[in-house]
Amino acid sequence: MRTPPCLLSLTLDSAVHNLSNITDLSPLPDHILIELFLRTLRTGKLTERVLKLFIATGKDEVFSLIQALNIQVTVTPVLPTSKLMSLSIKDDEIDIVIGALRPDLTSFMNEWRTIFSRFHLIIVKDPDLKEELKIPEGFNLDVYKKPDIDRVVGTSTSTIFSGYSCRYFGYLVSRKKYIISVDDDCYPAKDNKGILVDAVAQHITNLTTPATPFFFNTLYDPFTEGADFVRGYPFSLRSGVQCALSCGLWLNLADYDAPTQALKPEERNSRYVDAVLTVPARTLMPISGINIAFNREVIGPALLPSLRLGGEGKFRWETMEDIWSGMCVKVVCDHLGLGVKTGMPYVWRNDRGDAISSLRKEWEGVKLMEEVVPFFQSVRLSREATTTEDCVAEVANVVKEQLGSKDPMFARAAKAMVDWVKLWKSVGSSTSSPGA
Amino acid sequence: MRTPPCLLSLTLDSAVHNLSNITDLSPLPDHILIELFLRTLRTGKLTERVLKLFIATGKDEVFSLIQALNIQVTVTPVLPTSKLMSLSIKDDEIDIVIGALRPDLTSFMNEWRTIFSRFHLIIVKDPDLKEELKIPEGFNLDVYKKPDIDRVVGTSTSTIFSGYSCRYFGYLVSRKKYIISVDDDCYPAKDNKGILVDAVAQHITNLTTPATPFFFNTLYDPFTEGADFVRGYPFSLRSGVQCALSCGLWLNLADYDAPTQALKPEERNSRYVDAVLTVPARTLMPISGINIAFNREVIGPALLPSLRLGGEGKFRWETMEDIWSGMCVKVVCDHLGLGVKTGMPYVWRNDRGDAISSLRKEWEGVKLMEEVVPFFQSVRLSREATTTEDCVAEVANVVKEQLGSKDPMFARAAKAMVDWVKLWKSVGSSTSSPGA
Repeated sequence: MRTPPCLLSLTLDSAVHNLSNITDLSPLPDHILIELFLRTLRTGKLTERVLKLFIATGKDEVFSLIQALNIQVTVTPVLPTSKLMSLSIKDDEIDIVIGALRPDLTSFMNEWRTIFSRFHLIIVKDPDLKEELKIPEGFNLDVYKKPDIDRVVGTSTSTIFSGYSCRYFGYLVSRKKYIISVDDDCYPAKDNKGILVDAVAQHITNLTTPATPFFFNTLYDPFTEGADFVRGYPFSLRSGVQCALSCGLWLNLADYDAPTQALKPEERNSRYVDAVLTVPARTLMPISGINIAFNREVIGPALLPSLRLGGEGKFRWETMEDIWSGMCVKVVCDHLGLGVKTGMPYVWRNDRGDAISSLRKEWEGVKLMEEVVPFFQSVRLSREATTTEDCVAEVANVVKEQLGSKDPMFARAAKAMVDWVKLWKSVGSSTSSPGA
Repeated sequence: MRTPPCLLSLTLDSAVHNLSNITDLSPLPDHILIELFLRTLRTGKLTERVLKLFIATGKDEVFSLIQALNIQVTVTPVLPTSKLMSLSIKDDEIDIVIGALRPDLTSFMNEWRTIFSRFHLIIVKDPDLKEELKIPEGFNLDVYKKPDIDRVVGTSTSTIFSGYSCRYFGYLVSRKKYIISVDDDCYPAKDNKGILVDAVAQHITNLTTPATPFFFNTLYDPFTEGADFVRGYPFSLRSGVQCALSCGLWLNLADYDAPTQALKPEERNSRYVDAVLTVPARTLMPISGINIAFNREVIGPALLPSLRLGGEGKFRWETMEDIWSGMCVKVVCDHLGLGVKTGMPYVWRNDRGDAISSLRKEWEGVKLMEEVVPFFQSVRLSREATTTEDCVAEVANVVKEQLGSKDPMFARAAKAMVDWVKLWKSVGSSTSSPGA
């Protein structure tokens, strides 16, 4: 049972409602002034005029509060900027990109129907896939096949889009601000309470609320409902930076490499961690392409197909293109002051493939990381690199210089990165739709 | 329904059981050899002799697997070192330290009884507290009061242990390897399934499994049951480093500062995030002293009472000693190659205090962080600093040089850090029990 409000509290409520009639607050005692200020803020009544009224009191406490909460004199109403959210994204600012590595997308599409049907879909068929695609009715989509790819980038370039890399063609031809990309063996997951996760909504929330890469918040994403910045978090860092990339996770079959999967064939991920967090600046991570979203306008050209293993296969653990691209995009985000988040949303990944038979193919990728991680940890870009395209070109140069002689695979990756930036610029300035 | 095992599978199982009779594996086809190796590993049958048997085949796949899983030739049995855990901690290697800021500890102790009663407790009474302590029966504990503190450190030094800083006296006089410290307004929490959280067990798990500060694992702590390193995580980094500090979290009343708490008086943290993670190297965070555990032998002297606010009070949001100490300990851990984890275990924090009346006191602390965070982010220690004591002394010097002139509070903190290292050395070389 709550105690009834005291007389002071009722008086303050009344004062908040009558602020427009008040012209001078200076006679109020300090503690009442602070309480009135906080109530005004909480109820969204802190207009520019009212803010000036508080400032006119000349009280130190008021100035400190304004400074600490990072309140700026702008148009009405004023809210603490640390928790401002701009979720007014329209559905047509989003493309869902799916790389089709298997012909029958019926169950995949039907499982995602309630979530995907509001959005435009780009389906890119793996150019190596011979069978016709089976796609159920009722979606707003464009399908790109080998002839479409050949037409847009030329037959000599189109090979870069085979296997999982076909999705990158979707990134290239999209004209939307946000891209969400999910592997075709993933289904919607359920949260701890058994409720279906809307992966699109969560990704967009991640991308449209600030990231906080310069200081770690122990209660994870401070922009999540019910969370905030903890004691000791500098107020000057609370407005955060723009989030460019959101990396989602996987329930059931986790994204392990072939040796780990082979060693623990029965292991499934059942831990639903109810959190999103910003990966700190200068911290690298293995970014998986299974379930990601990004701001295409800001960071698009840094998601690229460039590192291809000699024995690359059609199972996730036989690829490294997303891990390499992820290292690149994280270095670029760090350089440009952009944020990368990881955590929710989860997708449910179904079993596919035989890890043991993949073991031989994947050694190359496993060993590569011993070179790749220290390399990307040491890369520093120049001040002249002010756009994502500049940054990718610089990274490509350093790859060529420092890794090129170690393995021809790296030299090829460096060239592919340079080519990708050119392609991005040329395709970006034209329009294209499939079968046109 | 699972399909019955195939003949090959049964044969391999039989081979694993009869390894002791096998002297040559080289006639086996590669894929069967790999499968046999993995099964041997999974069932814990990879003894030194058996490992040599596999190595004697001279097959590349075997060498790659041994290298990738970081298997070392040691005494039997051999397990992948990446997942080795050493939870064989004895109860008498642990001290629970409680700073008593209020006289009646009855409900606090009774709530924790099932968890704490196996361990030795050190209760340090805030020297400013006048009333007698009320402590229920049935615990193995030592209580330290003002006369005990005066006797050990002298009356001029004992002032550093007032308020929340009284706990540091417990850290000083403990002779145990591990310290777990919980504020006296915290009770055991329940997890998502309603099960009581054993905070001691979780802290000790965090401290005795490796930390991974050099690369971020997207599935959080890879040493948690059911988790592992994800695809792309370099195998050479999978053995991790020693974890020195475990920072737990809070349900109900979160550890917000006074302005945030005042702005959202009704906000409670109800989000139980089922995760532990290593805070990456060179990433700073606001470490709260409410619920922490550490390896005293390794990092003890870096947890210290040194920064005291002018208007410091008896509520958590009126203090900064733990945040400052946390910056110091993280910088030291990064320099010495030690790990810091955050996340579980949670404790349930009860409401206490009036945030609005604290607002005036806490401004100083809020503003300080704008100086303190960039400062600690820039601190780099010398190669000569090889012990925690060396590191703290170096940090103290830089504090004095770079911050000392900005605010006398920093100069006092620098001196307190130097004094603390001396005190740690002198008290550490003597033994002391209360009332002796």
